[in-house]
Amino acid sequence: MNKKLIGIDLGGTTIKFAILTDNGEIQQKWSVATNILDDGSHIVPDIVASLQHHLKLYQMTPDQFTGIGMGSPGTVDLKKGTVIGAYNLNWKTLQPVKEVIEDKLGIPFAVDNDANVAALGEQWKGAGENDANVVFITLGTGVGGGIISNGQLIHGVQAAGEIGHMNVEPAGYLCTCGNHGCLETYASATGIVRVAHDLAEEYAGSAQLKQQLDNGEDVSAKTVFDLAKTGDQLALMVVDRVCSYLGRACANIGNLLDPSAIVIGGGVSAAGEFLLKKVDQTFQQYAFPTVRQTTKLKLAQLGNDAGVIGAASLALKFK
Amino acid sequence: MNKKLIGIDLGGTTIKFAILTDNGEIQQKWSVATNILDDGSHIVPDIVASLQHHLKLYQMTPDQFTGIGMGSPGTVDLKKGTVIGAYNLNWKTLQPVKEVIEDKLGIPFAVDNDANVAALGEQWKGAGENDANVVFITLGTGVGGGIISNGQLIHGVQAAGEIGHMNVEPAGYLCTCGNHGCLETYASATGIVRVAHDLAEEYAGSAQLKQQLDNGEDVSAKTVFDLAKTGDQLALMVVDRVCSYLGRACANIGNLLDPSAIVIGGGVSAAGEFLLKKVDQTFQQYAFPTVRQTTKLKLAQLGNDAGVIGAASLALKFK
Repeated sequence: MNKKLIGIDLGGTTIKFAILTDNGEIQQKWSVATNILDDGSHIVPDIVASLQHHLKLYQMTPDQFTGIGMGSPGTVDLKKGTVIGAYNLNWKTLQPVKEVIEDKLGIPFAVDNDANVAALGEQWKGAGENDANVVFITLGTGVGGGIISNGQLIHGVQAAGEIGHMNVEPAGYLCTCGNHGCLETYASATGIVRVAHDLAEEYAGSAQLKQQLDNGEDVSAKTVFDLAKTGDQLALMVVDRVCSYLGRACANIGNLLDPSAIVIGGGVSAAGEFLLKKVDQTFQQYAFPTVRQTTKLKLAQLGNDAGVIGAASLALKFK
Repeated sequence: MNKKLIGIDLGGTTIKFAILTDNGEIQQKWSVATNILDDGSHIVPDIVASLQHHLKLYQMTPDQFTGIGMGSPGTVDLKKGTVIGAYNLNWKTLQPVKEVIEDKLGIPFAVDNDANVAALGEQWKGAGENDANVVFITLGTGVGGGIISNGQLIHGVQAAGEIGHMNVEPAGYLCTCGNHGCLETYASATGIVRVAHDLAEEYAGSAQLKQQLDNGEDVSAKTVFDLAKTGDQLALMVVDRVCSYLGRACANIGNLLDPSAIVIGGGVSAAGEFLLKKVDQTFQQYAFPTVRQTTKLKLAQLGNDAGVIGAASLALKFK
């Protein structure tokens, strides 16, 4: 019988776990709340305890596993298996995650950045259809991503895949990174709301979005997309602006890397085909002619499972 | 004794050859004119004859070589070793280059795109310092490039590395590819002259570049850079505009791929540190903070030898 994989998706609110076949099929799935108290010092022990508990529950032993893979926020040292600067976990100092987990469980362990791991998940079992060249963009609170070329994640010297910090507007909004005009300042959930407020300032019509904003109602990226789908004039202006930035960023990614797919995921991608079609309009306009033939924009397919599936795939190297 | 490599740089006017150690040191170097008559049907026979002649001259035999690598214009099929659509060679139909050369010489043969091969050269023995993550941009008649990540060329589905066709201006100049605002329309040798003409239209001062353009003198990219170095006001405006596009494109490449170096070569790069410093100003402005630490802009070091050296490196896989 083939050995199994364990995937862990470590986030600021929950830690998701899954046991998978070496084919990437999820067999068991569970999660626990992330306890970030005391500088996040409970997190690794909690992971160990939860794994030990579930292995016992399923009557499984370490020798039945090829390895454990984990996606983590923060800066990951792939070789040493350490994490530092994961502020939503309160991990300010270096965490020797691999060392502790391998010692306690006796199963080989690998860790990578959470966006990279989600990219691997979508590439392996999702919209990427296991092609060797796939780019993943996640549109959430921020904009992140991961790049797979020649079947391998691109890490660069330290942290490749900063898709959210591609410049799309030379004198654009100030970003949390200190630069101006990063994609994230327009295409993240908060960026979309920011664009809505800005365009509303100069909009004189009677669109519902305008009224909601003027009334001080709580407007989210979802509100904007929902209204745009109903034909709301201002919401459409916002969506068009955001999608043109996204489409041009996708075209430049395509022109550089010529992947078979650029997969768009994250909360904002819930806007679905409506979003994709608008992004694709601008993509078609700026993609190099051959890239228009080879690179397709796609919606992510795995939702919340992308993390555990991609994380598990990190452990395939221990086979 | 270690076996040798042969590198071939096939261009529209000359075919350059070199015999190298497996360390990338050139031991012999020669070139022949490219005969593109009769649909380019003389090119491969000429390559074979030139190699046979020089092997005889140097009293060397096929078993003393690991392999032959070649950089070619056009669309290359890496696996089959064929080339099609190399219009400056008159190669409109499929050319079975690998098959013929291996048959005639009895040495394993590999071929890749000329820009990719130049990138490999600079990465291996030039400014890239043999790092696993290096991007090469060539500024010539057009703007091309090659991307090396994880120690491998990125090909994508078909033709990655279309750096010249990254969009830098949404409503910019029309490009030969049919799109608007490609980097190449501003930062190629012809693009720079185009920017000069455009800015001269709106310039009312007495800059020498303005006078030369108004007099209908022959102005080249070199003229523009030479005048800019002397402080010519209009020339400086042109250089600043071009370098800001280049810098922003480099920043986006850095943000995506985080290479250790972005190496700038090609004819326009003869402007040297003056060019590099101006590109770097904008790069620093738009690169993600960690990328500013990890990715350095550098001038190419190998000049015309980049092609034969990089081509030879393709043959290392036959070792």
